[in-house]
Amino acid sequence: MTKVLSRKHLLSMKHLANADIYRIFEIAKDIEAGHVPSFHGKFAANLFLEPSTRTKSSFQVAERKLGLDLIDLEGATSSLTKGETLYDTLKTMEAIGVDVAVVRQSEVGLLNSCAGDLNLSLINAGDGCGEHPTQCLLDLYTIYEHFGQFEGLEVAIAGDLKHSRVARSNAFALEQLGAHVSFVTKPEWEDRSLATNYITMDEAVDRCDALMLLRIQHERHEQSTADQSYLEQYGLTKAREARMGPNSIILHPAPVNRGVEIDSDLVESDKSRIFRQMTNGVTIRMAIIQALLKGEL
Amino acid sequence: MTKVLSRKHLLSMKHLANADIYRIFEIAKDIEAGHVPSFHGKFAANLFLEPSTRTKSSFQVAERKLGLDLIDLEGATSSLTKGETLYDTLKTMEAIGVDVAVVRQSEVGLLNSCAGDLNLSLINAGDGCGEHPTQCLLDLYTIYEHFGQFEGLEVAIAGDLKHSRVARSNAFALEQLGAHVSFVTKPEWEDRSLATNYITMDEAVDRCDALMLLRIQHERHEQSTADQSYLEQYGLTKAREARMGPNSIILHPAPVNRGVEIDSDLVESDKSRIFRQMTNGVTIRMAIIQALLKGEL
Amino acid sequence: MTKVLSRKHLLSMKHLANADIYRIFEIAKDIEAGHVPSFHGKFAANLFLEPSTRTKSSFQVAERKLGLDLIDLEGATSSLTKGETLYDTLKTMEAIGVDVAVVRQSEVGLLNSCAGDLNLSLINAGDGCGEHPTQCLLDLYTIYEHFGQFEGLEVAIAGDLKHSRVARSNAFALEQLGAHVSFVTKPEWEDRSLATNYITMDEAVDRCDALMLLRIQHERHEQSTADQSYLEQYGLTKAREARMGPNSIILHPAPVNRGVEIDSDLVESDKSRIFRQMTNGVTIRMAIIQALLKGEL
Repeated sequence: MTKVLSRKHLLSMKHLANADIYRIFEIAKDIEAGHVPSFHGKFAANLFLEPSTRTKSSFQVAERKLGLDLIDLEGATSSLTKGETLYDTLKTMEAIGVDVAVVRQSEVGLLNSCAGDLNLSLINAGDGCGEHPTQCLLDLYTIYEHFGQFEGLEVAIAGDLKHSRVARSNAFALEQLGAHVSFVTKPEWEDRSLATNYITMDEAVDRCDALMLLRIQHERHEQSTADQSYLEQYGLTKAREARMGPNSIILHPAPVNRGVEIDSDLVESDKSRIFRQMTNGVTIRMAIIQALLKGEL
Repeated sequence: MTKVLSRKHLLSMKHLANADIYRIFEIAKDIEAGHVPSFHGKFAANLFLEPSTRTKSSFQVAERKLGLDLIDLEGATSSLTKGETLYDTLKTMEAIGVDVAVVRQSEVGLLNSCAGDLNLSLINAGDGCGEHPTQCLLDLYTIYEHFGQFEGLEVAIAGDLKHSRVARSNAFALEQLGAHVSFVTKPEWEDRSLATNYITMDEAVDRCDALMLLRIQHERHEQSTADQSYLEQYGLTKAREARMGPNSIILHPAPVNRGVEIDSDLVESDKSRIFRQMTNGVTIRMAIIQALLKGEL
Repeated sequence: MTKVLSRKHLLSMKHLANADIYRIFEIAKDIEAGHVPSFHGKFAANLFLEPSTRTKSSFQVAERKLGLDLIDLEGATSSLTKGETLYDTLKTMEAIGVDVAVVRQSEVGLLNSCAGDLNLSLINAGDGCGEHPTQCLLDLYTIYEHFGQFEGLEVAIAGDLKHSRVARSNAFALEQLGAHVSFVTKPEWEDRSLATNYITMDEAVDRCDALMLLRIQHERHEQSTADQSYLEQYGLTKAREARMGPNSIILHPAPVNRGVEIDSDLVESDKSRIFRQMTNGVTIRMAIIQALLKGEL
């Protein structure tokens, strides 16, 4: 694998060629084999302006395993509410010696407009309804780990497509890597800008190699979804899981609404890669940080 | 001291035999003598869903002194409010590589129901009105450090017994270790399920070797206690302290309401072990983590 | 430079003689030259009871670069709201093994009343409208770095003098070091207890070597300042900047209100030391901590 282009930020899957994606997987496999570089003396700042447990914790573990020091930016919210721009906050981070800044915030495209003038590595950890490239890469890695390649794989993405940044990044990258992607959703959550090949959940379980369930974001919907009815119409029941192919797998970005997107008993079933995704998340984030800090991307 | 049973969680004093308690004290003394193991490369997560200053800080210092890396779980609250179960949050911690999770939350028994399926060490740092075993062990260690043993010691526990998880754990463990425990409280705070041997504060100071004051939790009581009158009837005034035996000691889990449970001038008096308890808290938590991670319990 | 007096806290610029200030600058230059001591095994606690991004982050980076372990005191607020005094919180920090406590809180003089009985080093990181000595020292260091000395320098401080702890500390120290200080402000923000030599912004740019802009604290004013009109009357426009001397510099403690105190295009201009101040802030805080922990002050 040759070096495709030198890059210091990871803002969007759209900036990554297939070769970049495979390069990150290669680094991840090296890390799993115990080849972990040390960035002792370098600093990471995790700036989460929207709530997060697992993404933030995952980055923290990844950063510490690489020997980076972390600074805590809870307070960053307060300067931003004082009217400081995100650019000035990031420029401040640069000035005090931060080498990599991981940012979750709600405005699509804002990071791109900041990135050009920053002398640190910027990682998009979710920008509203835009993208979430590290989640995408850990999903892809989890599929790759199981199937060894993407060419001709049938992948179904099921859930609230309209509000999911994960769906958008994943669909784009999977198609680029040679997989075929279908979608399952309620009519009011269809996003025709994303795709047109909508199928039912029953068709999905019969056909797919990888079933990617999305989280119903109760906190973004005014009216609570009738959970049991959602599970029956659009979710993964035990009956549906039994119809899935013997080599097929189930993914979910978590947190899972047990009994809504998926029957609670299936969360830790054989086909489920839900907790494996979290483990891979740490490895993939280590690989991304290594790639950015060492100019390997 | 032989190894009593292999155990990876610390959830309740009821799970500890006297031999376990003495084993923890032995490790604590080794640590004080400078024998501190390194758990470099291992991770601790501190998940405090209810506020805490000193217990959380104490665990942080203990963990860092043992070389553990810490991950910050402020955000955990948010995933839990998104409807994720505590089990799924802890399973996430396990998946991202956490070795020991310290949890404070309000539901009695919830940790026990999670613990069985977790491949990490779980420490109960206070579960509502249930137990707070690390506080109990540091109280016991502070008594042990002074008296060298428990057999026949007279201990009085004074304060709001109804709402105190400390009282419950301490009374159980002290009796098991051979001490004799009496209680001082207002009639409305008596808890007959805990004990029956209630005495007055005057009787307590005349009789006890160790006086354990509990904190009046103003934030749990609708009507503010008339502080000065509480001190005079149920608290440790200077006059009462003067009647205590020459070798007796005073404990309080802090934060202290100065002038309510105890006269402000007595907080740092000769008999007081209040700040010593905090120093011992770090040592005892180091000992507990060492015991759990090395399977010495 | 001889050692002036042995001191373990930094609470006010009024406690520092010029020799102390130059001693801190000397240590800072040594640190910039790569002579960084290690305080591995020691602990710092950052207790920010009022919001802060850059001061807190700056201390965190400084502490980590010195090898100190940090403990997170978000929760400290809760014990303080439980009625615990700041003294008891700091005494707790001492008891659990903290060596240096950095405190931001709102009551002028409170730290002085606590400091005497504490066996740890206390640093004032801003006390309401009182002082902010580490900000002052980094401002002074940034001026010193450029001019090499203070004698006869013309310094203008412009902005909301009434609410600025930075103005107060800086004016005092600059005069003591031999600079001449003038002030620019709106009539209603004049503070006659601070100074009497008020000039206009036009006079300031014509005359000064260093122009120190203060932040308009919108959050402390009921009525929003008419921003464009403030810039034109009291702020640094491009036209005014063009009149400044060729060797003059611009300082601002940040966060900047772009287009209010200063034209947005000037924030990263040649004369601006705004981001340099942040870089110096880390170095100066390292120097201060080193001086306190090693008794070099």
